[in-house]
Amino acid sequence: MSQLSTRHLLGIKDITEQDINTVFETADNFKEVLNRPIKKVPSLRDITIANIFFENSTRTKLSFELAEKRLSADVVNFSSSTSSVKKGETLIDTVNNILSMKVDMVVMRHSSPGAAHFLSRNIKANIVNAGDGTHEHPTQALLDAFSIREKLGDVAGKKVAIIGDILHSRVALSNIFCLQKLGAEVMVCGPVTLLPKHIASLGVKVEYDVKKALQWCDVANVLRIQLERQQIKYFPSLREYSLYFGINRKMLEQLDKEIVIMHPGPINRGVELNSDVADSEHSIILHQVENGVAVRMAVLYLLAGVR
Amino acid sequence: MSQLSTRHLLGIKDITEQDINTVFETADNFKEVLNRPIKKVPSLRDITIANIFFENSTRTKLSFELAEKRLSADVVNFSSSTSSVKKGETLIDTVNNILSMKVDMVVMRHSSPGAAHFLSRNIKANIVNAGDGTHEHPTQALLDAFSIREKLGDVAGKKVAIIGDILHSRVALSNIFCLQKLGAEVMVCGPVTLLPKHIASLGVKVEYDVKKALQWCDVANVLRIQLERQQIKYFPSLREYSLYFGINRKMLEQLDKEIVIMHPGPINRGVELNSDVADSEHSIILHQVENGVAVRMAVLYLLAGVR
Amino acid sequence: MSQLSTRHLLGIKDITEQDINTVFETADNFKEVLNRPIKKVPSLRDITIANIFFENSTRTKLSFELAEKRLSADVVNFSSSTSSVKKGETLIDTVNNILSMKVDMVVMRHSSPGAAHFLSRNIKANIVNAGDGTHEHPTQALLDAFSIREKLGDVAGKKVAIIGDILHSRVALSNIFCLQKLGAEVMVCGPVTLLPKHIASLGVKVEYDVKKALQWCDVANVLRIQLERQQIKYFPSLREYSLYFGINRKMLEQLDKEIVIMHPGPINRGVELNSDVADSEHSIILHQVENGVAVRMAVLYLLAGVR
Repeated sequence: MSQLSTRHLLGIKDITEQDINTVFETADNFKEVLNRPIKKVPSLRDITIANIFFENSTRTKLSFELAEKRLSADVVNFSSSTSSVKKGETLIDTVNNILSMKVDMVVMRHSSPGAAHFLSRNIKANIVNAGDGTHEHPTQALLDAFSIREKLGDVAGKKVAIIGDILHSRVALSNIFCLQKLGAEVMVCGPVTLLPKHIASLGVKVEYDVKKALQWCDVANVLRIQLERQQIKYFPSLREYSLYFGINRKMLEQLDKEIVIMHPGPINRGVELNSDVADSEHSIILHQVENGVAVRMAVLYLLAGVR
Repeated sequence: MSQLSTRHLLGIKDITEQDINTVFETADNFKEVLNRPIKKVPSLRDITIANIFFENSTRTKLSFELAEKRLSADVVNFSSSTSSVKKGETLIDTVNNILSMKVDMVVMRHSSPGAAHFLSRNIKANIVNAGDGTHEHPTQALLDAFSIREKLGDVAGKKVAIIGDILHSRVALSNIFCLQKLGAEVMVCGPVTLLPKHIASLGVKVEYDVKKALQWCDVANVLRIQLERQQIKYFPSLREYSLYFGINRKMLEQLDKEIVIMHPGPINRGVELNSDVADSEHSIILHQVENGVAVRMAVLYLLAGVR
Repeated sequence: MSQLSTRHLLGIKDITEQDINTVFETADNFKEVLNRPIKKVPSLRDITIANIFFENSTRTKLSFELAEKRLSADVVNFSSSTSSVKKGETLIDTVNNILSMKVDMVVMRHSSPGAAHFLSRNIKANIVNAGDGTHEHPTQALLDAFSIREKLGDVAGKKVAIIGDILHSRVALSNIFCLQKLGAEVMVCGPVTLLPKHIASLGVKVEYDVKKALQWCDVANVLRIQLERQQIKYFPSLREYSLYFGINRKMLEQLDKEIVIMHPGPINRGVELNSDVADSEHSIILHQVENGVAVRMAVLYLLAGVR
């Protein structure tokens, strides 16, 4: 049976190209299952999974929960905001409790970068990082790359432009790691205030003109402008952002080729993406959502095998 | 096997008398099941149902969730308030996501009238409207009519007075449609500020004197005063409402007949209904709650058959 | 088969020593189950349990939910805060609804002392009190005593000091009842403002010097300082509390014996307990958490047998 080289999925940085391909092959099988009338398999029937979300989430949480229930796992949820709690305390409490309650797997989202790593060093359960601050969001990167592979046949050799707020985005970082491991060329594009200073050291191209980025790429992964993460004063206003970086159908028609449009959701329609693009034949946004469940089933299934 | 004429339950306005009776006959069977020691049936074992509540709810959500679990469905919940979000966006996101995550049935409550209809036009899943703003709340109307039928043998020919805040009530509108389809006579009664201007055009009697309404009716369905929906200045205060429209035992004793008292809950005791009525032998309020689970099981079961 | 003398677990005050021992013997069996790879048993497969939490809770709720799912029960959750509601109303609504929805067992946390008793007088379901205001928290006391029995072989004859905010603690009261029924000697220790005036009438020793309490006891059960329950002005500040009542490793080393340290969690590290104690070999805090699931499984299993 296929296995991962790791007990946890903390970030794409920590896993191998072989791991990624193992997830993809397993997800291929689960995607077939999800297209049957009976979408449930008994694979994790005796496994208890705790979904622990210290940050609000709707779509990621729902996607994980559906993946877990279709694997027949027992699911417990707990959501909390860290606003009123010293984070260190809460996380130590979490560690202690989960360890002792003999939960088998933990899916955790937390506002602190490194929270999932911290947890993994203190606990026997398998950990899946569902987003740790601005650090990593590995299942999003896996489902994004899986969707590119599905659409274009392969990821290797493809040119992918990640466009938007790179600085505050865990999706961007995980995508860069994942795409590079799979042999894609990666460009980041956004306002200078939303690009990390040393981003080029990751081996990505940097572009400030969105039209040039679109002309260069095979795939544009357009990120959500996350106003809630914004703490810098010198930031383009939404109106300015939309004017200079928003993507509309006309821009796509002026290219001399067809490109694929992706977005991790939820879309700010009219800001980073116009509806005439989001809902167009260029967009594979809904395939990303669909693939999310299959990819998460694959990750949970494979990690359970390494316990 | 019995079937409904519709894939969705969006409102009572859209379904036929035959549909209503099919729900009732199926609910009769499920009510028997709920009185057995083992209350669970395997009917929806391979069905995934998402309960999506954009408005707070406790009893309706609990009732649906119990109905779903007793049908052995897989259940995922997500609750959210729309306060901080542009509603259109959220709903489009919801549509896109649910569609793509291959959920079989969606139970949705939303603050916007028409939200469930909008969803149903964009999605393959079966939709059950669990309340859309001030528009419809069809399962409440079905359980209300089911409870009248159970208590009085039939709905046809009965006189039902709906008393209270008709203007802001989705329960009132759905009840009017349901009762009329089943052949009952319907009256609405409340302060002039809480009755819609053109309500008589729906073919209901209009009455401003609660004592006359009680004298006329066989059944009084007393609505909750929903202060949270109130935006009009000229409104009777709670004290005034209670004084002129509140129902107490003495009022029932002065009638020359026995009437049935209903309430969709939760009761504002001492406002629209005194405890000496709510807890009396006239009241079938608890039967309504009990029947709610059986009726919702019937709706979910029947809709699953039309997929 | 072993049985309890009661249909409900409302408080330790109401149950017998024999009941407590029956819970412990059953929990021994479930603890074995929890150490197997497959931690699930089909015991409550046809039972519906509602977890109704009117007060926030993470660890107690998670522990109950895991216990229920490992017993294969159907679980519905509802959480609510009583801040905006008149409590009496809400509780009557709760009673009415649960009764009518034919839930088999209710696990309830409520901010009002006596809420669980009130519910039990009005409902056919088995009730488990998961904390009612400052009154009782019986499953916490059971898991605490179970953990002492596990560590020291027996509870009878042991000296247990409960240290901290006794006045606002339901854990303290339930522990006093439980330990006394099992034949332990109990001392309470804390600032004079945090000890109930007539506490000595319960047959406990009272001590204001934490070093003397530690020297006296075999087990120190250190309570959490619950600032959220605090309404008295004359209260030591956190800094003062920590200075005079906080327990650190040096204090334990100065004793002429080994004592056991317990804490119901979550710990305010550096306030009532230093990390060098909480994480030391004296501490059985994580065993308490582990035992919590087994003890709650035992309580639910045994009560289901008395229906």
